[in-house]
Amino acid sequence: MRETGQRVLRAAVRTLSQLGYRKSTARAIAATGGFAPGVIYYHFADLDDLFVATARFISEQRMARYQAETAGVTEAVEMIASLRSLYVEDEAEGHISAIQELVAAAVTSPRLADSVREETARWVDFAEAVIRRMIADKPFEDLIPAPEVASAFVATYLGLEMLSHLHADRTRPDQMFDAAARLAAIIDLLHT
Amino acid sequence: MRETGQRVLRAAVRTLSQLGYRKSTARAIAATGGFAPGVIYYHFADLDDLFVATARFISEQRMARYQAETAGVTEAVEMIASLRSLYVEDEAEGHISAIQELVAAAVTSPRLADSVREETARWVDFAEAVIRRMIADKPFEDLIPAPEVASAFVATYLGLEMLSHLHADRTRPDQMFDAAARLAAIIDLLHT
Repeated sequence: MRETGQRVLRAAVRTLSQLGYRKSTARAIAATGGFAPGVIYYHFADLDDLFVATARFISEQRMARYQAETAGVTEAVEMIASLRSLYVEDEAEGHISAIQELVAAAVTSPRLADSVREETARWVDFAEAVIRRMIADKPFEDLIPAPEVASAFVATYLGLEMLSHLHADRTRPDQMFDAAARLAAIIDLLHT
Repeated sequence: MRETGQRVLRAAVRTLSQLGYRKSTARAIAATGGFAPGVIYYHFADLDDLFVATARFISEQRMARYQAETAGVTEAVEMIASLRSLYVEDEAEGHISAIQELVAAAVTSPRLADSVREETARWVDFAEAVIRRMIADKPFEDLIPAPEVASAFVATYLGLEMLSHLHADRTRPDQMFDAAARLAAIIDLLHT
């Protein structure tokens, strides 16, 4: 996709994050990005098409960051520290709000729902690979059902995003990372 | 609240579950319940007021069921079996879809967001009490940060509901309960 296509996608992320899905009209997205509304329709068939592309855009960008930051990490404490800094990025860049808006909107858009399903599956695969790396050679390795734990992790992350987006759990992500770091320190001490 | 108020609430749950939030107009809710739209406004100031009451109604009803079913349960295997049957009820009665619609709609309604925050806090308290009962006298009791684990559980449940509502994780809840049951069997063998 050309540079202007990327500009439209970045404007869509910012608009979703700041105004929410319902107010993310072509006019609002164009105003955020500083281009004419026609630019959107040069790259995308309609707004539904743009939002489907936006879900994939956020997911691919974040997947690249998550993979880069966690590559080679085999100790649980270091992994939790990486995930914490990635979560802070997600929040600062408006990805959490934008994704939350798109997931909520997926209830009314079958194409967006397909896209959310597809991206969710990629994140479950990623989580499963990370979990397998974390439990390798641990005494409880065979007790942990990696695919189910991976699904639970992705569901937890989406649920936390939802609560954080509603400010229903304002201070909790930080406390949860603290708690996870304490448990991780114990896991790192265990070896087969 | 009088019996007709309850009828309106039950009709709101069914309509949200079957048609979604956007199509849950006064007319649609009245048609579902078999009463005149005016009945809604006899009990509730407006639709926002009805949806706030509906969120509380579902939460209170389900809390009563969850408390009754889990009261006195101290073994992890039995707890997972209870939670599994409660989840099946949640799904069959349309509570999952209705709650998911209300949580998604909370993004655009500050009063609904307040209500979701309030009910979420009650469920986190409930989860914390259950977790404390489950880990009492276990060797890892002091390692488990009950408030954070309780928040994570509620977030996971909301995330699973969201994925299930989008059919993004169709068969997973069952597989997850299977996995949880296997882990629970191990936990039940541990004693201080």
